[in-house]
Amino acid sequence: MTILQRNNISIDGSGERTIVFAHGFGCDQNMWRFVEPSFRGQFRTVLFDHVGAGRSDHSAYNPRKYATLGGYAADVVEIGRELGLKDAVFVGHSVSAMIGALAQIEAPELFSDLVMVGPSPRYIDDADYTGGFSEAQIEELLASLADNHMGWSAAMAPAIMGNLEKPELSEELTNSFCRTDPEIAKQFARATFTSDNRADLRNVTARTLILQCRDDIIAAEEVGEYVHREVAGSQIVYLDASGHCPNLSAPQEVINAMDAFV
Amino acid sequence: MTILQRNNISIDGSGERTIVFAHGFGCDQNMWRFVEPSFRGQFRTVLFDHVGAGRSDHSAYNPRKYATLGGYAADVVEIGRELGLKDAVFVGHSVSAMIGALAQIEAPELFSDLVMVGPSPRYIDDADYTGGFSEAQIEELLASLADNHMGWSAAMAPAIMGNLEKPELSEELTNSFCRTDPEIAKQFARATFTSDNRADLRNVTARTLILQCRDDIIAAEEVGEYVHREVAGSQIVYLDASGHCPNLSAPQEVINAMDAFV
Repeated sequence: MTILQRNNISIDGSGERTIVFAHGFGCDQNMWRFVEPSFRGQFRTVLFDHVGAGRSDHSAYNPRKYATLGGYAADVVEIGRELGLKDAVFVGHSVSAMIGALAQIEAPELFSDLVMVGPSPRYIDDADYTGGFSEAQIEELLASLADNHMGWSAAMAPAIMGNLEKPELSEELTNSFCRTDPEIAKQFARATFTSDNRADLRNVTARTLILQCRDDIIAAEEVGEYVHREVAGSQIVYLDASGHCPNLSAPQEVINAMDAFV
Repeated sequence: MTILQRNNISIDGSGERTIVFAHGFGCDQNMWRFVEPSFRGQFRTVLFDHVGAGRSDHSAYNPRKYATLGGYAADVVEIGRELGLKDAVFVGHSVSAMIGALAQIEAPELFSDLVMVGPSPRYIDDADYTGGFSEAQIEELLASLADNHMGWSAAMAPAIMGNLEKPELSEELTNSFCRTDPEIAKQFARATFTSDNRADLRNVTARTLILQCRDDIIAAEEVGEYVHREVAGSQIVYLDASGHCPNLSAPQEVINAMDAFV
């Protein structure tokens, strides 16, 4: 099995530089379908599915490797090396923003630019760090996922999506959550929601753009601003988009902000 | 048919004063089951279902009467007179906060105190009035409800509930939305989301308490603060609770704030 097969890699577009798009928890590369095509004229575009998601090779799933975000970041580095990337752009949605940060720290030659869509370096509040959840809330959330994957997905996805006027997007995200293998979902959720990458942010050397939504139940404004403070020289753009998935709910805003940055 | 039957009125508790609890869109009096019992020791408590909701007499539903919130407020006044209320407390969740305001203005002798849980006097932004939705969003939201009541309910309810760690509450609200007669839901949604009661707020003469949640997709902080500014002498309490239904997700906080007020 090649790395390209393992991560179900799709390559399109033409350009000297490459943009790699990475999806978040419970999703797959389809998450980028309204955004990626706009960059094909000027960039080579790369889409992939994290192992355990979408059409990745699920036999490559290794609970120990993927118990932390580092396992996913190692895959991104492998993908980057396989494709011979140099000074590419990495665009990460949600938890993949931190996965991208870890990959960039590990192999800075691969990615000169990072776009973080709704990033959070830690989901649990801690002393001066707020905007996330209490530890008890995260434990409840993980327990309810373990207890009832379908019910959890049906409740979680619409709250994450927001955008009351577009129920079809919530339905899509719910279905995507439901399609995920429950065991993998459980482990990816734990890897995500118990992660703490605050200390890593200072080691990011890429030019970094943070896209911050309004009313994002997963990544609050103060969390995006924390990332902005900690990543040297980073830019933050406040989107008018609400919810946690502007790549689906307000793709043109995401495209415009990315265009201005890259 | 008596008014008590029409609105499926439940009376409990013992006390000189009465508290009337009113539920919001897509719900019924069960919405108050974690809050109301706490007040039975010191108050007579009254629960009811709006016509078209819960176990109200659905044959009393009249599309013309209930095309605006005034129709619901007229019922509240009738209930208050039927029960011989004087200087009672009216507790309204969501749209029933404005229904209570209208009833209080119409019959100020009935209610000396108003508790508004997540109120909004207008859901559509307008010049200096923000924190709501665009007119296009509200039209989309109403169109998608008309198009697919079940899908809309499944997407809407969890986003309104928030509280990712308690998916059982989202499931309960989803089921409650789904149980509502689709035609009545459509009309109640239109009555709610196209209402504009901003000018009425200045005519409220009751002592008023506003309970404001964090991360409430329906009633943002700036909207609660607008109500606070416009209702003379009102108090606002910022709950630590998030989402739009603290009566379900954080009942003790609601009880404590109400206790301190009444």
